Amino acid sequence: MHHVAILGSTGSIGTQALDVIAHHPELYRITALAAYHNDKLLETQIEKFNPSVAVLIDDRAAIRLRSRYHGSTKILTGEEGLLQAATLSATDTVLTAMVGASGIKPTIAAVEAGKNIALANKETLVAAGEIVTQLVREKGVQLLPVDSEHSALMQCLHGESPKTVKRLLITASGGPFRGYTTEQLKTITVEQCLRHPNWSMGKKITVDSATLVNKGLEVIEAKWLFGIDYDNIDVVVHPQSIVHSMVEFIDGSTIAQLGKPDMRLPIQYALTYPERLPSPAPIMDWNVMTSLEFMPPDKKTFRGLELAYRVGRSEGTMPCVFNAANEIAVNAFLSSKLPFLEITNIIEDTVNHHHNVIKPSLSAIFTADLWARNYAQELVARYEREIHR
Amino acid sequence: MHHVAILGSTGSIGTQALDVIAHHPELYRITALAAYHNDKLLETQIEKFNPSVAVLIDDRAAIRLRSRYHGSTKILTGEEGLLQAATLSATDTVLTAMVGASGIKPTIAAVEAGKNIALANKETLVAAGEIVTQLVREKGVQLLPVDSEHSALMQCLHGESPKTVKRLLITASGGPFRGYTTEQLKTITVEQCLRHPNWSMGKKITVDSATLVNKGLEVIEAKWLFGIDYDNIDVVVHPQSIVHSMVEFIDGSTIAQLGKPDMRLPIQYALTYPERLPSPAPIMDWNVMTSLEFMPPDKKTFRGLELAYRVGRSEGTMPCVFNAANEIAVNAFLSSKLPFLEITNIIEDTVNHHHNVIKPSLSAIFTADLWARNYAQELVARYEREIHR
Repeated sequence: MHHVAILGSTGSIGTQALDVIAHHPELYRITALAAYHNDKLLETQIEKFNPSVAVLIDDRAAIRLRSRYHGSTKILTGEEGLLQAATLSATDTVLTAMVGASGIKPTIAAVEAGKNIALANKETLVAAGEIVTQLVREKGVQLLPVDSEHSALMQCLHGESPKTVKRLLITASGGPFRGYTTEQLKTITVEQCLRHPNWSMGKKITVDSATLVNKGLEVIEAKWLFGIDYDNIDVVVHPQSIVHSMVEFIDGSTIAQLGKPDMRLPIQYALTYPERLPSPAPIMDWNVMTSLEFMPPDKKTFRGLELAYRVGRSEGTMPCVFNAANEIAVNAFLSSKLPFLEITNIIEDTVNHHHNVIKPSLSAIFTADLWARNYAQELVARYEREIHR
Repeated sequence: MHHVAILGSTGSIGTQALDVIAHHPELYRITALAAYHNDKLLETQIEKFNPSVAVLIDDRAAIRLRSRYHGSTKILTGEEGLLQAATLSATDTVLTAMVGASGIKPTIAAVEAGKNIALANKETLVAAGEIVTQLVREKGVQLLPVDSEHSALMQCLHGESPKTVKRLLITASGGPFRGYTTEQLKTITVEQCLRHPNWSMGKKITVDSATLVNKGLEVIEAKWLFGIDYDNIDVVVHPQSIVHSMVEFIDGSTIAQLGKPDMRLPIQYALTYPERLPSPAPIMDWNVMTSLEFMPPDKKTFRGLELAYRVGRSEGTMPCVFNAANEIAVNAFLSSKLPFLEITNIIEDTVNHHHNVIKPSLSAIFTADLWARNYAQELVARYEREIHR
């Protein structure tokens, strides 16, 4: 029996992870569930999976739940509750599926407590990749990606010698605006942006897909997960999202992982690695005429990708600042405070004004994160003032 | 230093294998070369690679070469010479790249002498799969495929548990006549047939690609190489020949091997397995717009594929008979004695009249092979008589 804690259980990844686990009740048991404030869904999950601990980070949500729920699961709250859920002694693997930089602390706490990590929170590696991967090595735990692209890379790399890897090829759907000109992007609405062609995901990552910032974050994540230089990580646009990524080897052979776009497959692989189990995910039907297209990304129009390479190569606190500025800009866009193209401008402006700290401590990272959020927020406010003048 | 013997060194696979080996002079040494009758090319190869032994199966070709060549390489001839070349004590790996059923005896001799086999002669497994794979297990040697499809499957399977394999998906270009109707196939010429869209190969295999008999032989080869039931081996048409085959796992994940069509890659992989080395093969350029298409094969028009499944499932001497009848029919087609569509008819007629021997000895296989050749030859002669009446 494998004991799993899920941080971010009411989100898109969290609910799909519970679907996977429900398919293998003889193999997995849920020890802890944590959510931000969706007390109703968390209550349903508690009733179905009966964890020892459940957390609502938001106090008021926790109060609401406690007033209704009187079962055996302990209801905790706040960051302290989250850290407890991340480090329960009964847990083998923690699936970290929180949105954004809030995943960093609980992930590190879980690694320090000797837990294997199924990582759905790429921001942890973007902001604190060096610290986290170093700690993972020290503690001898496994850090397994849940992102479909990184799961694909891990599957392609499995059984191969690291020294024979030439290049990682991360595929990108290109998002809903593939082929758009800068002019066309000026009038994008939030609604258009949230209509992703292939994947049903949370709002934040859907916007990140449209700007290609998500692909940039994935490049940085891949660098830390697999220890590959940025020069040897490329992005290939593949609109159908069937090939989830590829690895090119020194002999010229390329290994690719394919499947229907369904996050339950990479979630399950992170739990069963290096084994495989039957999964609820649908399989490819090759009796149907299928066409898979590949093309280079339009880096000039979608500048977020190049910016990510730039901050990645700069190292230090730069990737953290890139990520924090993006979170602020995306939130502003989702609240209709900012047009689509301004997201990348705000990231670039913030990155350009940041004093990079090389080999940062965790506290230097949090300081940079806070600085970037304030700076980006100020840029959003300035944009709004100028617009309303 | 790895010592390699190449049987069939002047053919398409043999010359490309020598190109691969010439790229790694520090790693590989040629111990023996064998060819049918191309004494000029063999002489050039002897001068370049200086093997201890070289064989010309054809007596007259050997006499020609001996009259010119006076170096240190021992020139042998006939089947006896071939078997000596296959079993030299200095050899680690024998690359068997002879055309057709003539590869069976030297391959078995090499396995019995404890050599690893890089198998480019699929007919060996088609005709004698059970005997050869059993012997390979007994002798504890490696049997590594050189066919691009089987090399792809081996790469996709590497590091995975056999029990998690759901299905092998062998890709097929569909040959030069993909999309043709039976009516259109009636008037095919030898010249049209030899124009394969993606691969430059020997004549026999090029015709086999056009009839899909080659894909049928590959299905049987895959069954023996990987121990997978025919029900779990499917063929997918992929006109671009970039994806060389795929493996579908029980979790719904599919692993594919991709690369430009260049036989030097699978040849080298068979020599370096499970490692990889830099290779002379070109790599994929993903900066170019690429479209990969997949569709089911037209089994009604190209009946050779279904026939192969049928003889494969029948086991015994049936696959051997299928292969032998095909060799005769393809030769007759190449000599313009038989129209294209008659190839499959002759195979079917021969198979239908064969009394299957289950669990055959090697001599029963050779008896069936000879019977099938005579029977098919008789069908060709009958066809010619009827045409000229």
